[in-house]
Amino acid sequence: MSSQPAHPALLIPGPIEFDDAVLQSMGHYSESHVGAGFVATFGETLSLLRLLFQTTNPASQPFVISGSGTLGWDLVAANLVEPGENALVLSTGYFGDGFADCLRAYGANVTKLDGPVGGRPQLPDMVTALQEKKYKVLTVTHVDTSTGVLSELKSLAAAVKKVSPETLVIVDGVCSVACEELAFDEWGLDGVVTASQKAIGCPAGLSISMFSGRSIEAVKNRKTEPATYFASMRRWLPTNNPAVMQNYEAKKPSYFATPSPQLIHALNTALKQIMARPLAERFQKHIEVSDRVKKTVTDLGLEIVASKPEDQSHAMTAIYLPEKIAIPDLLPRLLNKGIIFAGGIHKEIGTKYVRFGHMGVTAVDPSRHDVDNALKALQDALAECGYKKA
Amino acid sequence: MSSQPAHPALLIPGPIEFDDAVLQSMGHYSESHVGAGFVATFGETLSLLRLLFQTTNPASQPFVISGSGTLGWDLVAANLVEPGENALVLSTGYFGDGFADCLRAYGANVTKLDGPVGGRPQLPDMVTALQEKKYKVLTVTHVDTSTGVLSELKSLAAAVKKVSPETLVIVDGVCSVACEELAFDEWGLDGVVTASQKAIGCPAGLSISMFSGRSIEAVKNRKTEPATYFASMRRWLPTNNPAVMQNYEAKKPSYFATPSPQLIHALNTALKQIMARPLAERFQKHIEVSDRVKKTVTDLGLEIVASKPEDQSHAMTAIYLPEKIAIPDLLPRLLNKGIIFAGGIHKEIGTKYVRFGHMGVTAVDPSRHDVDNALKALQDALAECGYKKA
Repeated sequence: MSSQPAHPALLIPGPIEFDDAVLQSMGHYSESHVGAGFVATFGETLSLLRLLFQTTNPASQPFVISGSGTLGWDLVAANLVEPGENALVLSTGYFGDGFADCLRAYGANVTKLDGPVGGRPQLPDMVTALQEKKYKVLTVTHVDTSTGVLSELKSLAAAVKKVSPETLVIVDGVCSVACEELAFDEWGLDGVVTASQKAIGCPAGLSISMFSGRSIEAVKNRKTEPATYFASMRRWLPTNNPAVMQNYEAKKPSYFATPSPQLIHALNTALKQIMARPLAERFQKHIEVSDRVKKTVTDLGLEIVASKPEDQSHAMTAIYLPEKIAIPDLLPRLLNKGIIFAGGIHKEIGTKYVRFGHMGVTAVDPSRHDVDNALKALQDALAECGYKKA
Repeated sequence: MSSQPAHPALLIPGPIEFDDAVLQSMGHYSESHVGAGFVATFGETLSLLRLLFQTTNPASQPFVISGSGTLGWDLVAANLVEPGENALVLSTGYFGDGFADCLRAYGANVTKLDGPVGGRPQLPDMVTALQEKKYKVLTVTHVDTSTGVLSELKSLAAAVKKVSPETLVIVDGVCSVACEELAFDEWGLDGVVTASQKAIGCPAGLSISMFSGRSIEAVKNRKTEPATYFASMRRWLPTNNPAVMQNYEAKKPSYFATPSPQLIHALNTALKQIMARPLAERFQKHIEVSDRVKKTVTDLGLEIVASKPEDQSHAMTAIYLPEKIAIPDLLPRLLNKGIIFAGGIHKEIGTKYVRFGHMGVTAVDPSRHDVDNALKALQDALAECGYKKA
């Protein structure tokens, strides 16, 4: 039984539903950000992130900084790319486009490869682009929250290594970390940026990221100073004194900007819950839940935005509405049944689809019935709207 | 009675002790960041900030963004100053120096006026500097957390208006907002940046700021795009679509980067507690507590870092240790007595003093005895160290 008051189930693609123990950690009594107790918690949290990202390479560097997931883009754009350097952005929706905008804001020379609506850019096109000029970084959205399109990260990273091994492979994992398979070392990733409030299952407010030793070297070897202060990795890293993130992990107090002890406690609780079971089991549960959602939705005669099965994320399902049923018809009916879905945010099809997030406790906690309830509510609400399968 | 487990009283100059109701708000069940319930809470929170900052001018614009207090410097440096423009920084310690570093990171041409250790730069020197060249912004740390030096904000702002009325007056209010008098409209301020975890009394993780209509115009009229994404005011403001902060205040859903509903709930609770009583009464209580601390400390024969009474903040007291007593002698003894003070962080005198924060519930909640306990603990700990008044 949840100790939270009765409330509609939040089944949008983030923020997600949170476990009671995580929410209780949010109310931790006040601690000094440089006191031994909190520093031990923060240090352990950074070490847990290495397990979650599947990296054992000591050169990999985790970061946890107060901010939205968006701040991860700034970390990449401000630190890994110098003004005028080339960035290749693979876009599968709103968030791929946003990453490109962010890179441009810091002066990167951006080439963007767009997938069709509901699809991915194709690997041969990426290879051709990489052969045409030298890119400092390639960015890819692992799961685009706007469309639910999943990128083929493993083979994509392998292809980059083959064609342009010096290009840093950077992943927007906001909607994938802790629900989609992601093997930082094995796949040779150079950076993954994410946020607390999606599959990790901790309230919003933390930018969480992992960078490879190659990326950290690129930061150290910059010719120009990053044009940022709060988002400057150099100010959080050992080239600077104090070496904030490394000190925290070594459980030594350190200061650059004040972290949020309460959010870090909640993240610590969430990560311990995740790492208490094998990651493979967690990913498998997300696949099973996602398969069930997608089967039920298509059995209802509805269409999924990510059109090919291999392009479909297991974090969420973006569903086209039937003709003549609009978002303002459907969402309030779902809310009446205790279910919250999100509207669309893709620039071309925003009004035509809804998004159903099925991450974290919603997917893995057997005592919850969020998914069954949501599928039943969707079916009933569509019937109330007069929908009949064609 | 607090519902928090027994824990030492955190009397550092931030994070401070938090009220139970605020900590309970941190565990709010998950809500959509664009749902009606949360949007109403966020909107109300922005309106409460207008009351706290004492601004009724509709052109004033509050911002609440996930981040540390440090992010406020980035907001100013990235948005209000274009590369090559002049910034005059009045420094009273570590945080004034930090603001200058941040402005330089974004390409500002910085002139810094330093006060002596424990003192302020003098107004005539500021006036001379303003007469020598044109400054786009002047920044001043209202209370420098490293030294407890209070700036004479009201007369300083008046002097700037007289000598260089076009210069934007920007205040680092991290350690002053909600404990020191600050009248945004009446004093003609153009920007105040602060954080949640000090006198406002909400856990760390929010950058909170207020900018004048003149500042917002300066952002709109920039010749260059700000070299930032997450910290770009244009992306949070009505020149851009959607007009995120204005929409939230009008209780319309809007999206740029995902806010932290739990932190915003806690901030809402904290602001309602503050605004339930007249602000003047709150400031007076902080003065009374501060006066009591400073009298007891000087009666003990100790010296305060902010040497002149008019330079002393009411948020905190930085206290020189007696000769032969070191920080590692004193702080563990205080902790044994249930009191946490902070060490020093001023580059010249860091090892020679400790910092005692007396903000928020510690100052205004009559059911707490933090200040009495701390003064008694200090006296006893010094005696254990062999200290006798000279």
